[in-house]
Amino acid sequence: MLKGQVLRSFRNGADAPGSFDRPKVERMAIITLTTDMGARDHYVAVVKGSILSQEPTATIVDITHEVKPFHTAMAAYVLRNAYPAFPAGTIHIMGVNPEADRFTAHVVVQHDGHYFIGADNGVFPLMLDGLPEAAWELTMKLDDDHAAFPVRGVFVKAACHLARGGTPATIGRPLKSLRELFHLTPTVKEDAIIGRVAYIDHYGNVMTNVKRTLFDDLHRGRAFRIHFGHSADDITALHATYSDVHQGQSLAFFNASGHLEIAVNKGVEGSGGGAARLLGLELGDAIRIEFSERKRP
Amino acid sequence: MLKGQVLRSFRNGADAPGSFDRPKVERMAIITLTTDMGARDHYVAVVKGSILSQEPTATIVDITHEVKPFHTAMAAYVLRNAYPAFPAGTIHIMGVNPEADRFTAHVVVQHDGHYFIGADNGVFPLMLDGLPEAAWELTMKLDDDHAAFPVRGVFVKAACHLARGGTPATIGRPLKSLRELFHLTPTVKEDAIIGRVAYIDHYGNVMTNVKRTLFDDLHRGRAFRIHFGHSADDITALHATYSDVHQGQSLAFFNASGHLEIAVNKGVEGSGGGAARLLGLELGDAIRIEFSERKRP
Amino acid sequence: MLKGQVLRSFRNGADAPGSFDRPKVERMAIITLTTDMGARDHYVAVVKGSILSQEPTATIVDITHEVKPFHTAMAAYVLRNAYPAFPAGTIHIMGVNPEADRFTAHVVVQHDGHYFIGADNGVFPLMLDGLPEAAWELTMKLDDDHAAFPVRGVFVKAACHLARGGTPATIGRPLKSLRELFHLTPTVKEDAIIGRVAYIDHYGNVMTNVKRTLFDDLHRGRAFRIHFGHSADDITALHATYSDVHQGQSLAFFNASGHLEIAVNKGVEGSGGGAARLLGLELGDAIRIEFSERKRP
Repeated sequence: MLKGQVLRSFRNGADAPGSFDRPKVERMAIITLTTDMGARDHYVAVVKGSILSQEPTATIVDITHEVKPFHTAMAAYVLRNAYPAFPAGTIHIMGVNPEADRFTAHVVVQHDGHYFIGADNGVFPLMLDGLPEAAWELTMKLDDDHAAFPVRGVFVKAACHLARGGTPATIGRPLKSLRELFHLTPTVKEDAIIGRVAYIDHYGNVMTNVKRTLFDDLHRGRAFRIHFGHSADDITALHATYSDVHQGQSLAFFNASGHLEIAVNKGVEGSGGGAARLLGLELGDAIRIEFSERKRP
Repeated sequence: MLKGQVLRSFRNGADAPGSFDRPKVERMAIITLTTDMGARDHYVAVVKGSILSQEPTATIVDITHEVKPFHTAMAAYVLRNAYPAFPAGTIHIMGVNPEADRFTAHVVVQHDGHYFIGADNGVFPLMLDGLPEAAWELTMKLDDDHAAFPVRGVFVKAACHLARGGTPATIGRPLKSLRELFHLTPTVKEDAIIGRVAYIDHYGNVMTNVKRTLFDDLHRGRAFRIHFGHSADDITALHATYSDVHQGQSLAFFNASGHLEIAVNKGVEGSGGGAARLLGLELGDAIRIEFSERKRP
Repeated sequence: MLKGQVLRSFRNGADAPGSFDRPKVERMAIITLTTDMGARDHYVAVVKGSILSQEPTATIVDITHEVKPFHTAMAAYVLRNAYPAFPAGTIHIMGVNPEADRFTAHVVVQHDGHYFIGADNGVFPLMLDGLPEAAWELTMKLDDDHAAFPVRGVFVKAACHLARGGTPATIGRPLKSLRELFHLTPTVKEDAIIGRVAYIDHYGNVMTNVKRTLFDDLHRGRAFRIHFGHSADDITALHATYSDVHQGQSLAFFNASGHLEIAVNKGVEGSGGGAARLLGLELGDAIRIEFSERKRP
């Protein structure tokens, strides 16, 4: 789902404020964790213990630890859908592919009232569909053993600094560019949109990369037909939610993230009945929406 | 394990207090989550972020997110066994089958010093083995996008209202009936109880629907014999706990929930050695207890 | 990986302080949980609810609930690697094999500024590579139903006592010995170390029982060669971390725990590419390090 990567400039230099208008940290900051560490080993606990050692009043929330190992796009997808639910001022640690190297800095990103900490490997522009409002390369002094476990040795230290009300500018230097990864965007024609399967959830629901705004631009009240996978029956209407159709029936709707979702009401992936399995859809598969000149009846 | 469902009246009208004698909310309320959302996607984090956005001091506790998707009976079983451990005043969100429809309201249920929030799909009477002390249909004003994600859009809002010390009466109207689902109850004869396997846990331990009170009623000091699955050796005695028998041996006892449990000491489901696997038992299978006129030696 | 067990004396009698120099409990103690209970059933929630019922301000942190059922060595491994990240004064509940019997007491162990609560089944000396600074047998009064669920009925009660600033001496009697389990230690010759695979993590990284201090003792600047599994290419150098080699290449380094780790950069267990799978290594397999008289070039 990734088209490539570039380095691009954005406005964030000497004039970067270093701190947006964040609610005063009264009693506890929220630090979230998005990793591929799984639930079995000691890694997640080490991260949490390190946070509580440095900032005992922090509220730690797991976004997920079940990202497919090293899967940047999946990590970006999950955090993009999770972070807006958190209050402004929340600090999000991105623990997937956290390593720095000669070409990859550790960074703090500020956007939309939130902080994000991770490696400059393209994950944040991917997550934000573009560049963030501001970014800093972390330059703080580190313990010697930080390299083998940067989430603990680097990200936790930066997160706790921010949690105490510190600014990014005191632990980093402003960046003028950030490495970018791009999502494949849908192909758009006068009478059709060709999108892709961007994510398949626990229930087997299929999330596409087709946004409501794009759909609305082409729809203009026309009839439409959504083709995909090996479905015998194309979808020709949008619903509001799963239970708008009978149990076991497929439907399409724009979900809370504003993306076209294809689902089966009460379908279950593990039981062979989720949309992905029933309709034969996999990550990256094409979804074709065709618009007709005939108005909908 | 579900026999059917009815609508039945219970005493909860204009005289419903709207708030039981709950410990004063000093610093933080506890909100628990029981869902089938799994640990991989962003859904659980969205729920937690939404709670913390509305009620930053709430303590959020996961009951489980691993209910088999859409499995009302499993959700009821797990929450029934978990909730009594929490302090009075705890607010429990039931996130399995949360959709409302023309026949199904969103409700707050009050029982035993606890609040429960979910859909009126039968799960609460199933969980409580009967009707709760009081219930309200939620009538509060909702955001437009609540339908596709009612746990976030409806239940969190209601939970945070209660967490702040608000009463159910200010966000709902008293209900006089609730949809009911029933558990299959054991068949009882003068000399026998025929129960069922109601749940199988992570270790392969088998929980039946036979309660201690029922057993005691028929036991009256008589010898007994528990038949089940393909066990060569019936169980003819009750123990207090797993380690009362040698490793690898099967045993029966009344567990902390007051139900007859059949287990293998240090048996492990995944390794082929849990009671369910060793004894060939599955959900819904019959467990037969026969009493003999001969007194136990 | 366990060689056997003995009972051995240690210094902890009338002169045991009963409480080390612990940071004053201001607002909340930290209680961690290490269990084999899994994420699906109600057990973990019952433990958490019980803690919050007795000590509402406690911060509860999951170390893991995914220890292989009844696997003492795995539980010891995970907690050993996790606990030092937590602040002094943290209380760690060891919920794997928690049963007491005629030969096995419930104990509180004090070491390195931390408290550990569990059964005297050898897990703590295994975890600490020796005896702790002090230990007490729990003698507090218990509820009648504690036997079937000692984590809840015994450990939580003891943990909350400590969380409130209570001393071990008021709930237990000093122990002079503790049951011990030992790790297999490496075989050491003048020119070789023969170690073992002690743990394999979520990514397929292989942790051995070879410590850096032992390696350094024999290394003395000499060239070395690490043989293991069915690797065609022995490892002849140490790196600092995963990304020091190209993606898909194997490497060896001393990890944050001070043990020799063999890994594949961005290898993934589930995808067939983790070190354990690629190199054909399993728990307990031998790792042979040979030193040569020739100095490294």
